[in-house]
Order: sequence, then structure tokens, then C-alpha cells
Amino acid sequence: MKLQVAMDLLTVEDALELAGQVAEYVDIIELGTPLIKAAGLSAVTAIKAAHPDKIVFADMKTMDAGELEADIAFKAGADLVTILGTADDSTIAGGVKAAKAHNKGIVVDLIGVADKVTRAKEVRALGAKFVEMHAGLDEQAQPGYDLRGLLRAGEEARVPFSVAGGVNLSTIEAVQRAGADVAVAGGAIYGAADPALAAKELRAAII
Amino acid sequence: MKLQVAMDLLTVEDALELAGQVAEYVDIIELGTPLIKAAGLSAVTAIKAAHPDKIVFADMKTMDAGELEADIAFKAGADLVTILGTADDSTIAGGVKAAKAHNKGIVVDLIGVADKVTRAKEVRALGAKFVEMHAGLDEQAQPGYDLRGLLRAGEEARVPFSVAGGVNLSTIEAVQRAGADVAVAGGAIYGAADPALAAKELRAAII
Repeated sequence: MKLQVAMDLLTVEDALELAGQVAEYVDIIELGTPLIKAAGLSAVTAIKAAHPDKIVFADMKTMDAGELEADIAFKAGADLVTILGTADDSTIAGGVKAAKAHNKGIVVDLIGVADKVTRAKEVRALGAKFVEMHAGLDEQAQPGYDLRGLLRAGEEARVPFSVAGGVNLSTIEAVQRAGADVAVAGGAIYGAADPALAAKELRAAII
Repeated sequence: MKLQVAMDLLTVEDALELAGQVAEYVDIIELGTPLIKAAGLSAVTAIKAAHPDKIVFADMKTMDAGELEADIAFKAGADLVTILGTADDSTIAGGVKAAKAHNKGIVVDLIGVADKVTRAKEVRALGAKFVEMHAGLDEQAQPGYDLRGLLRAGEEARVPFSVAGGVNLSTIEAVQRAGADVAVAGGAIYGAADPALAAKELRAAII
């Protein structure tokens, strides 16, 4: 299982600093959606230039103009680009077309999708490299939120998947047991007093 | 009925040029999602600085972190910010909280929502200023696409709404007849040989 750090920060400077601290412990470096919107795609270019050996993940969360948005993100240096699972099939197919042209990959983010299992199979058939079983920051903040729903959906869908939405040192073992291909940690790393140590411990918890 | 130009361009320079050409004929200037992602929120600041008397619409298409994403867009100079109708209610409520703090507005973009009438009523109750009855560029490119579905949904929902998805000189009369508060024209303006003339004609078609 790969480890992905989600950088939900707002400036390129902060992102470069965090990436520098944790890169040796992670496989995939994600630029969060607010960072891309705040700073633009030059943020992706800066991170890829600083970490050319890492997989750079642009969380574009594209809802429309799938081919165009994926194309500009790949051109900026992204290796993986997200499209929303709530988007039209044609938007996902457009993104996949751009990914093929760049020999890169589309990840479909299933945030907000009610039936994640069915949609996971559909978007995999459309050419997504993998799906992200994802509960957003706003959903995680709701009372009673539980990561296990995402893990069950991942187990059931039987397509390659990542898990994002409360991955930390106490849950990462369950994420791996569910068969996830990628564990995505955000606040558990960037919110830690020592992000490098937090990433190192998460890495060590993966068998 | 107000007229909104949607600038689906990729650079601030092109957006400033287009806005300069059409501003006198439109009420609302929209920065498209690909432009914001490509250039960052400084694009919003640049347009607002050039057109302080116009309503500046940042098509953020937020799916998560509603309060944060809306806050940074308002801080950058936006008057209206979009959140996706497929987002969690908590995301929309977060955006509305940010809008109230800035005395600005949230528009909920109903792209990808199957039952637009029901969702329109729900998000209006959550505090959206208006909803956007919207078919995306990818959906419009499908065979058999017809704007009339959006107009019927707007008429039925009985909440303030805009229409986007094929508004042009041949359809704008029907948009107004359906009771839309805002007609959004994208390609009909930016794709025209003479964008200023196209905007002027659309403006003249509004009674």
C-alpha cells in the first residue's frame, strides 16, 4: 500500500516546506483543491520540480470540461488528476482521454456519491486508474462520522482504490486490511507538531 | 434579468481583455473554473480591480471545505462564489457562513444534480442567494442536449435562478420567459468573432 500526503495548505511556500519535510516517507504528494485554486497550477509545477521522483497528485476535483482541466494539470506536471464521481460520464471520459495522451492517470474522487460501490465500477470501466473512497473535511466534521463505511465500500467494489477521510496512525492498519492501494493522510501529517515524524510513523505502520 | 458573461479562458491577460470588451453590456463577470485553477485567485483580484462596479462571480465549484474555499474567494474580491449542488449540505452551509461574514453571496451550481427542482429548494433553504440551472460544457456536447430541461426546472423550483448551458441570441428570450434572474452566456460571447457586439446584442434582447 502506498502512502499519500494531502497538502491542504494555501500557499506554495507552505506546500514546498511540508513536501520537503515528508517526501522521503511518502509515495504520492497531493496538492489539495484549495491550494490549486488559491495559487494556480504553478503550484503543481513547483512541487514536481522539487520532487521529480515522487508521484504528484493534483486534486482538481473537476466537475466539467474534463479533458481541458486534466490536460492543463498534466501539462503543469501532475501525474495523477482527480475528477469528481458526481460528474457526467463524458467529463470522466474526457479526463481519461487527456490522461492517455500524457501517459498519466485519472483518479475519480467519490466524495458526495451516495452509492460508491456502483459508481466505482462504472468509472473504472470508463478508464479511471483508481477511485478515491473519500469523505470530505466537512463530512468528517459531522457527528457520528466513521471511516469504516469507506473501507466497506472499497472492499465491496473490487476495483483499485485509495482511502481518504480520517486516515491516521490508529486507522491505517484497517485501511490496509481493507485492501486499499493507497492510504491518504492529510491532517494526520500536516496538522502534526512534527509532520516528518508523523509521516515516518504512518510509513512504518504499513506492512 | 441580469446578463452574466462566463469567461472560460485560461489566462488573466485573456480574461482582462474580454472583460474590457464586454463589461459595459453585462452585469456579472464570471471567472470560469479552469481559469481559477490555472491562474489562481489572483485572477479574481485582477478582474475586480479592473471592474469594481461589476458583480464578480468566482466559479469555484466547491465540493468540500465550503467555508474555507468561499472565504478565500471573497477575500480575493469575489461578490458571488459557487458551491456544487452535489456537495454535502454542510459544505453549502459553510459557504453561506463565509458569505454572511463578507456580506456577499453563495450561488449553488446544480450541474450534475439529477433532481434539480428538489435540490434547488433545499439549497435555497440553506441560504444560497440563487441557484444555477446549469448543464456543463461536456453535457452540452452530448447528442440531443436541450436547454429547455433547465428552463422547466427553473420554472418549477420557484426559487431565484440563473440559467447556463446554451444561452445565446436564439434562446435568451425563452430564458427570460422562464423567469430566470440571470442569463449566463459563455461561448456565445467569448467564442464570437466580435465579443462586444455579441454581448451588446444579448443585452438588447433582454426586455
